[in-house]
Amino acid sequence: MKKILIVNGPNLNLLGVREPGIYGAESMDAILAQLRREFPDVELDYFQSNIEGALIDRLHSAAYGTDRADGIVLNAGGYTHTSVALADAIAAINVPVVEVHISNVHAREEFRHHSYISPVCAGTIAGFGPRVYSLAVRALAGN
Amino acid sequence: MKKILIVNGPNLNLLGVREPGIYGAESMDAILAQLRREFPDVELDYFQSNIEGALIDRLHSAAYGTDRADGIVLNAGGYTHTSVALADAIAAINVPVVEVHISNVHAREEFRHHSYISPVCAGTIAGFGPRVYSLAVRALAGN
Amino acid sequence: MKKILIVNGPNLNLLGVREPGIYGAESMDAILAQLRREFPDVELDYFQSNIEGALIDRLHSAAYGTDRADGIVLNAGGYTHTSVALADAIAAINVPVVEVHISNVHAREEFRHHSYISPVCAGTIAGFGPRVYSLAVRALAGN
Amino acid sequence: MKKILIVNGPNLNLLGVREPGIYGAESMDAILAQLRREFPDVELDYFQSNIEGALIDRLHSAAYGTDRADGIVLNAGGYTHTSVALADAIAAINVPVVEVHISNVHAREEFRHHSYISPVCAGTIAGFGPRVYSLAVRALAGN
Amino acid sequence: MKKILIVNGPNLNLLGVREPGIYGAESMDAILAQLRREFPDVELDYFQSNIEGALIDRLHSAAYGTDRADGIVLNAGGYTHTSVALADAIAAINVPVVEVHISNVHAREEFRHHSYISPVCAGTIAGFGPRVYSLAVRALAGN
Amino acid sequence: MKKILIVNGPNLNLLGVREPGIYGAESMDAILAQLRREFPDVELDYFQSNIEGALIDRLHSAAYGTDRADGIVLNAGGYTHTSVALADAIAAINVPVVEVHISNVHAREEFRHHSYISPVCAGTIAGFGPRVYSLAVRALAGN
Amino acid sequence: MKKILIVNGPNLNLLGVREPGIYGAESMDAILAQLRREFPDVELDYFQSNIEGALIDRLHSAAYGTDRADGIVLNAGGYTHTSVALADAIAAINVPVVEVHISNVHAREEFRHHSYISPVCAGTIAGFGPRVYSLAVRALAGN
Amino acid sequence: MKKILIVNGPNLNLLGVREPGIYGAESMDAILAQLRREFPDVELDYFQSNIEGALIDRLHSAAYGTDRADGIVLNAGGYTHTSVALADAIAAINVPVVEVHISNVHAREEFRHHSYISPVCAGTIAGFGPRVYSLAVRALAGN
Amino acid sequence: MKKILIVNGPNLNLLGVREPGIYGAESMDAILAQLRREFPDVELDYFQSNIEGALIDRLHSAAYGTDRADGIVLNAGGYTHTSVALADAIAAINVPVVEVHISNVHAREEFRHHSYISPVCAGTIAGFGPRVYSLAVRALAGN
Amino acid sequence: MKKILIVNGPNLNLLGVREPGIYGAESMDAILAQLRREFPDVELDYFQSNIEGALIDRLHSAAYGTDRADGIVLNAGGYTHTSVALADAIAAINVPVVEVHISNVHAREEFRHHSYISPVCAGTIAGFGPRVYSLAVRALAGN
Amino acid sequence: MKKILIVNGPNLNLLGVREPGIYGAESMDAILAQLRREFPDVELDYFQSNIEGALIDRLHSAAYGTDRADGIVLNAGGYTHTSVALADAIAAINVPVVEVHISNVHAREEFRHHSYISPVCAGTIAGFGPRVYSLAVRALAGN
Amino acid sequence: MKKILIVNGPNLNLLGVREPGIYGAESMDAILAQLRREFPDVELDYFQSNIEGALIDRLHSAAYGTDRADGIVLNAGGYTHTSVALADAIAAINVPVVEVHISNVHAREEFRHHSYISPVCAGTIAGFGPRVYSLAVRALAGN
Repeated sequence: MKKILIVNGPNLNLLGVREPGIYGAESMDAILAQLRREFPDVELDYFQSNIEGALIDRLHSAAYGTDRADGIVLNAGGYTHTSVALADAIAAINVPVVEVHISNVHAREEFRHHSYISPVCAGTIAGFGPRVYSLAVRALAGN
Repeated sequence: MKKILIVNGPNLNLLGVREPGIYGAESMDAILAQLRREFPDVELDYFQSNIEGALIDRLHSAAYGTDRADGIVLNAGGYTHTSVALADAIAAINVPVVEVHISNVHAREEFRHHSYISPVCAGTIAGFGPRVYSLAVRALAGN
Repeated sequence: MKKILIVNGPNLNLLGVREPGIYGAESMDAILAQLRREFPDVELDYFQSNIEGALIDRLHSAAYGTDRADGIVLNAGGYTHTSVALADAIAAINVPVVEVHISNVHAREEFRHHSYISPVCAGTIAGFGPRVYSLAVRALAGN
Repeated sequence: MKKILIVNGPNLNLLGVREPGIYGAESMDAILAQLRREFPDVELDYFQSNIEGALIDRLHSAAYGTDRADGIVLNAGGYTHTSVALADAIAAINVPVVEVHISNVHAREEFRHHSYISPVCAGTIAGFGPRVYSLAVRALAGN
Repeated sequence: MKKILIVNGPNLNLLGVREPGIYGAESMDAILAQLRREFPDVELDYFQSNIEGALIDRLHSAAYGTDRADGIVLNAGGYTHTSVALADAIAAINVPVVEVHISNVHAREEFRHHSYISPVCAGTIAGFGPRVYSLAVRALAGN
Repeated sequence: MKKILIVNGPNLNLLGVREPGIYGAESMDAILAQLRREFPDVELDYFQSNIEGALIDRLHSAAYGTDRADGIVLNAGGYTHTSVALADAIAAINVPVVEVHISNVHAREEFRHHSYISPVCAGTIAGFGPRVYSLAVRALAGN
Repeated sequence: MKKILIVNGPNLNLLGVREPGIYGAESMDAILAQLRREFPDVELDYFQSNIEGALIDRLHSAAYGTDRADGIVLNAGGYTHTSVALADAIAAINVPVVEVHISNVHAREEFRHHSYISPVCAGTIAGFGPRVYSLAVRALAGN
Repeated sequence: MKKILIVNGPNLNLLGVREPGIYGAESMDAILAQLRREFPDVELDYFQSNIEGALIDRLHSAAYGTDRADGIVLNAGGYTHTSVALADAIAAINVPVVEVHISNVHAREEFRHHSYISPVCAGTIAGFGPRVYSLAVRALAGN
Repeated sequence: MKKILIVNGPNLNLLGVREPGIYGAESMDAILAQLRREFPDVELDYFQSNIEGALIDRLHSAAYGTDRADGIVLNAGGYTHTSVALADAIAAINVPVVEVHISNVHAREEFRHHSYISPVCAGTIAGFGPRVYSLAVRALAGN
Repeated sequence: MKKILIVNGPNLNLLGVREPGIYGAESMDAILAQLRREFPDVELDYFQSNIEGALIDRLHSAAYGTDRADGIVLNAGGYTHTSVALADAIAAINVPVVEVHISNVHAREEFRHHSYISPVCAGTIAGFGPRVYSLAVRALAGN
Repeated sequence: MKKILIVNGPNLNLLGVREPGIYGAESMDAILAQLRREFPDVELDYFQSNIEGALIDRLHSAAYGTDRADGIVLNAGGYTHTSVALADAIAAINVPVVEVHISNVHAREEFRHHSYISPVCAGTIAGFGPRVYSLAVRALAGN
Repeated sequence: MKKILIVNGPNLNLLGVREPGIYGAESMDAILAQLRREFPDVELDYFQSNIEGALIDRLHSAAYGTDRADGIVLNAGGYTHTSVALADAIAAINVPVVEVHISNVHAREEFRHHSYISPVCAGTIAGFGPRVYSLAVRALAGN
C-alpha cells in the first residue's frame, strides 16, 4: 500500500476560515476525509506548520526518518515564493514532491508568479480549488 | 455526455519523435487512445496546429461555433510564452480552459517560466509527462 | 475617391460577443455600416484574420498587390504587443497606417502598454470605443 | 452649446517657433482659429502654462470652479512623462480628458513612451500633427 | 476595555542592547511600562519571537484563538522585507494591524525600502524611535 | 508655545470633494478645526499649493524666513513620488518634517511605493485617513 | 548530391522592393539564381511564408516529411526575436540550421539584438547583405 | 559685449546657508560679484526660481523675449534629474546652455547620476564647487 | 582557550547523505572530529537547526547569553540568500562571524550569487568542500 | 592582391590546447596553413595578443600605419563582451572588420550574448568552429 | 611652478584623424601647443596609451614615482565606461584628477552615460570639444 | 615540493601605500616574507601587473609554459568585476585558482559584488585582510 504525505505550509491551518473568496469554504479536515474516501488504497499522512524549518524537518523525515513516504503533496503557501531552504530540502530528498496551489497564483500579485520550489518538484498543479490535492495524489499514486 | 476538446499547439504534432528525453516516446495517438479508455463517459475532441491564429479560431468555434465543447485542455507549446492573442482568445470565450505542459517548464530555460495564458486559465498542470492530459480531463470532467 | 482599408487582428471577429464590458456590444458589421454612412466619399475595405501572417499578407497587397489602398486603419489586437513581423510589414509599405485600440490599453495590464507598431505608424488613437475607427478614417481621409 | 477646454503644457507656447521639424510651423493661434471654424457649435476655451501647478489649478476650476467645461483636450508636453500630480488632478475631476500629442511620441526617445496620464484619460490621440486637436474635440463633442 | 497586542519580530528582543545608534538605548520593558502609563484604558499584550512561523501563529490566535485582540501593532523586523507568509497571515485575519519601524527604514539599505506587509496593513508608522509604539496604539485605540 | 506648520501639496485643496472612496469626505477646514481642538497648546499654520516651487518656498521660509515653525507636517501628494527638488528642500532646512499620506500608498499603484522625501524626513505616517495629521502633530509636539 | 533548403520568414517576399537602404535592391529570385550558379553541386530548395506556423511545418517536413534536406538556411525575419515556437521546431529536428540576417541586426533597434533561435542553430551569419545566403550554404555544404 | 545669463534652480537661493559641507559657504551674491570681476567684458544676468515653469519661462525669454542672452549657464538643481519639460525648453531655444553642478553629483545618490538635460546642453561641468560658474562662463564666452 | 561556535543552517543536518556530488560524502560528525584534532587548543561548539529563528536565537546567546563564543563560523545554507533577519542578528552581536559555503555558490544558480549576510560578516570562504570549516576556524583563531 | 589581417584576442593563443570540447583541437597554425591553401590570391597577416591595448594598436596600424590591410577578421575573445575601447577602435578606422566566434556564443553564458563590437563591424559569423575564419576571409575577399 | 599631467586613453592617439565629426579635426599636438601658450606658468606633461594597465602605471608614478604631478587631466576614452581598475587607481593616489570628454557623452549611446571614474574624480568637464583640456587645466591650476 | 604562484592584479603594487583604511598598511614584500615563514615546504612565486593581458599571459605560462605551478592564488583587483578574458584564462588552464580579496567586497560598492572569475575558480576567500593569502595557500597546499 502506497503512503503519501500531504504537507501544508503557512496559514493553511486556516483553510475554510481565511478569505473564502480565494481559498474556498472547505476545511482541511473535510478535504482529507474526502481524499481518504477517494483513495481507499492509499495511506495518507498529513502535516501542517507555519514554521519554515518545521516543514523542512518533516520533508527530511519522510525520506530518511521513521515517517517515510512514497510521495509528497506540498502546498508551501507563502514560502513558495521566498524559501530557498525549502527548495533545497526538496532537492535533498529522493521522494517525489508535487507542488499544489488552491488558487490560480498566476492571476494574483506579481510576487506570487515565481516559485523557488517548482524547478525541484516533479510537477505542479494550481488553480482548481481543493481538488488540487486529489489530482496530486492521483499523479503520485499513478491511478 | 460531457464534451472536452484537447488542443495542442506548435511542434506537438511531433510528440514521440521530437526530443524524447524531454517530451517522452509516446505519440499523441497513443495518448488519446489511452484517454478514451480512461474516460469512457467523456467525448474527446482533438485539434493540433502549428499556426497561432488557427488555434485561436479553434478556441472560438468551441465557444461560439458548431464544434462546441464543455471544457478545453490546452497545451500551447511555445506560444504559451509569447502569445497575448491566444490569452485574449481564452479570455474571450466562456468555456473553462486548463493549461498543461508535458515537461516541468520551470526547470528549463528562463523564458519558459512566464506564461501569458496562466492568468486566464482555470488552472495549470505541468511536469508529469503525458499524464497531464489525463489529470486535466479529470479536473474538467469532475470525476 | 479615396480608398481606405480597415484591418482587424486576432479575436476582433468576436466584437459585440466577447467581453462587452471592455470592447462594447456593437458588432463590426454595425460599425462598418455606420462608417459608410459617415464617410460616403470614402471607399472602405475590410479584412480580419486571427493569423499574424495573413495580416502581413494583406498589408503587403494593399501596397504592392491588386488590393491597393490609400490608407490603413489597423487594430492589431494582441499582436500589437508581440509582433516584430507586423511592425516590419508596416515599415515595408509606403501606405500610411493608423493604429487604433477600442479600449484604453494604458489602463489595463502592463504588457498592453508597449506596442511594437506605434513607432512605425503615422499615429495612434486609443480608448474611445468603436469611435476610434471613425476618428482614424477621418485622420487618413483628411476631412 | 458644449464647452470644451484646450490645455497646453510646457513649451507649447512656442508652437510654430520651436523645432518645426517635429512640432510643425503652425502657431497655436492659427490652430485655434481653424478649430473654431471647424466646430462652430462648440465653445472653445484655451489655457497654456509652463507651470505644472497652474495646469492642475486650471483642471480643478474646469470641474469645480467658475470656468467649467464639458470636456478637456490636454497636451501635457513634458509633464506627460513625469507628473503624478497632474494624473491625480485628472482622476480628481469628473470631466473627461483626452490626451493629445502632436508628434508620434513612440517613435522618439524611450522616456517619452511612458505616460502617467494615459490610464486616467478617456483616450489618447498622437502623431497627426496639429490635427490631433481637431480629432480630440470631435471625440469629446461626439460629432 | 480595548485589547491591543504588540508583536515584535526578529532581533527586537535585543532592543536597548543592539546597535543603540540605530534602535535606541531603551529596552522593550521600559517602552511597555511607558505605554501602560500613557494608555491606562487599554489592555496591552506583548509577544516577541525570532521565528517567522511563531509570529504567524500569534497573529492567528489573536483573531481566531483564545488570545483575541482588537488591534495589533506589528514590528516585523527583518521579516518585513522577505515574508509573504506573514503578509498572508495579516490578510487572513480580520483584526486591524499597524506596521511600525523604530528607525527610518527608507534612509537605510535599498532592501529595507520594500515591505511585503504594508499593502495588507491598516497603516504604517516609521522613524520616530520607540514613540512609534505609542502612536500606533493611539491610531488603533482611537484616542 | 510650539508652532507647527501643515503643508499640503497638489490636489489636496480638493479634500472632501475628490475621490472620497480613497481620501475621505472630510474637508481640510474640518480637519484643521478638529486639530486645533485636539492640540490647544500648539500653534497650527496651514499652507496649500499645487505648485512644486511654492511648496519649496514655504519650507524655506519656515526655516529661514519670517514664518518660522518648530516642525512641519507635509503631505506632498503626487510630488512625493517625483520631486527631488522637494526632497532637497527638506534636507536644506533644519526643521523636522513628518511625511504623511491619507491613504495607504503601498496598497495602490506601484509608482506610489517610492518616496523621494522619506529618507530626509524625520518619520512617515500613512494610511489612517485624516487621522495622520493628528498623529504627526503629536509626533512633533511630543505629547 | 547534397540538398539544402533556404527558408525565408515574414516580409522577405518583398526583398528588392522593401526598404532597399536596409535590405538591398536585389530580389530573392536573383539571389537564388546566383546561388545555383555558385553551387552547381548542391540542390537548393526555397520556401517563404509570412505565417509562423507554416515555417514550422516546413522545418518539420525537412526532417520527417517527404521534402527532406541535409541542411537549412533560415532567415526568420521578425520571428527571430519573438518566436519560441520556431526555436522549438529547430530543436525538434535533427537537420543543422544556419541563422542568417541580411542587415547587421546589432546596429539596429534594441529588440533586434536578441534572437530566440541562435542558441539552437548551428551558427549565425549576419550583416553582409544577400551574400549571407551564399556563406551559409557554403558553411552547410562544407566546400 | 557678450551677454550671459546664469539660471539657478530649486534650493539654490539658499547657497551659503544650506548644507555647507556639500554646497560651500559662499552666497550666490558673492559668487556673482567675483564673476563680474573675473569677466569685466561680459554682461552677466542672474535669475533664480524654485518653480520649474518659471525656469522654462526664463529660458524662453532668453531666446525669443526681451531678455535675450548669447549663452546660458544653468544649475537646474533637483530638476536636473526629473524634468523632461526643462530639457524640452533647452532643446526649443537656439541659445547654447551649459549645465553646471557645484557638487560631484556622481559621487552622491544613484538618482543624481541621471540628467535629463545633459543630452540637450552644449556641455557639462560638475564638482569644482562655485568655480563651475566661472568655468562655464569662460566656456561660453570663449576666452 | 578560545571558544568558537560552528552554526549550520537548513538541510546541513543531511551532510554526507544529501546530494554528495555537490556537498561531499562526509558527515558533519566526521568533519567536527577532524576539526577537533586539527585545533586542539580551540574549544569548538556546534549547533544546527532548520529553523531561521532558532539560528537567530543561537547567535544572540553566543553574544549575550550563557553560551558565549569568541567567534562564529556560519553556514547559513538557503537562508544566506533570503534572510534579512539573520543578517540583522549578525549585525546585532559583537562577535565576529565568518560565512562559509561548502560548494562554490557562484558556479550554481543565479539566486545563490547574492548573500544578505556577506556585508555584515568579517569574511567569506566558499568552494573548498568541508575544508571551509577548517579555514574559517583558522581565520578566527588566528593561527 | 588583397591583404587581409586576422586578429585574435585573449586566450586564443591556446587554440587546440584549451577546452577542446568548446574550441576544437586544431591549432591556429594549422588553421592559418589551411586558409593560405584555400585563398592563394589573398595575402594573410596574423596577430594575436592578450592585451586589449595591443589589439587596438594593431587595428590602428592596419588603417593608418605601415601594416595596412584591406580587411580585418577579428576574434576578440572575452574582450567582445567588455571592451568599449576596442569598439571605438573599429569605428575609428576605415577598414571593414568582420567579427568571428569559433563557438556559438548565444548557446553559452548570458554575458556572452552581448557584443560591444557587433554594431561597428561589417558583419558577424559565429558557431562553425575554425571554419569561421574561412567564411570571414571569403566575405571580405568577395569570392 | 605647478605641474599638470594630461593623460589620454585609448584611440585618442588618433585625434584629428578619427571621426572628425565627433572628435574634431585638431591633433593633440596642436591642442598641447595651444595649452602651453594659454598657461605659460604651468608645466604640462603628456601621456597617451591604448593599454589600460599602462594608464594605471602612469597615474601611480604621478603620485608615488619620479614623474610626480600636482594635478591630472584624464580623458579615459572607452575605459571610462568599463574600468574599475582605473577608478581604483584614481582613488589610490592623492593627486586630484579631472575627468574630461571632448564630445557630449550623454547625447551618445546609452553605455557612454555611465562612468566608473566620475565618483572618484575631483570633477568632470564634457562636451566643449578640445576646449575641455583648457578648462580642466584652469580648474586644477586655480587661475 | 609544491609550487604555488601568487598573482596580484591592478593597483596591488601599492599595497601598504594605497588607502590603508581599506587595504591595510602592510606591503606585499612583508606579506610574502611572512608567507614563506609560514609555509617552509611550499615554493612561492609572485607576479604583479596592472595590465590585464599580462595577467592572462602569466596564468597561461603557469599551466603550459616554463613557469608551471601546482596552484594559483589570484587577487584580480578591479579586473575581478570586469574581465571576461581573465575568467576565460582561468577556465583555459588545468591549474586550480583560488580567488582572494583583502577587503570584504560585499560590504562595498554594488559593482564589487559581482565577480566574473568566481564561477571558474576552485574557491573564494574574502575579507580577512592580508591573511587571505595565507588561507588560500593553505587551501591549495592542503595542510
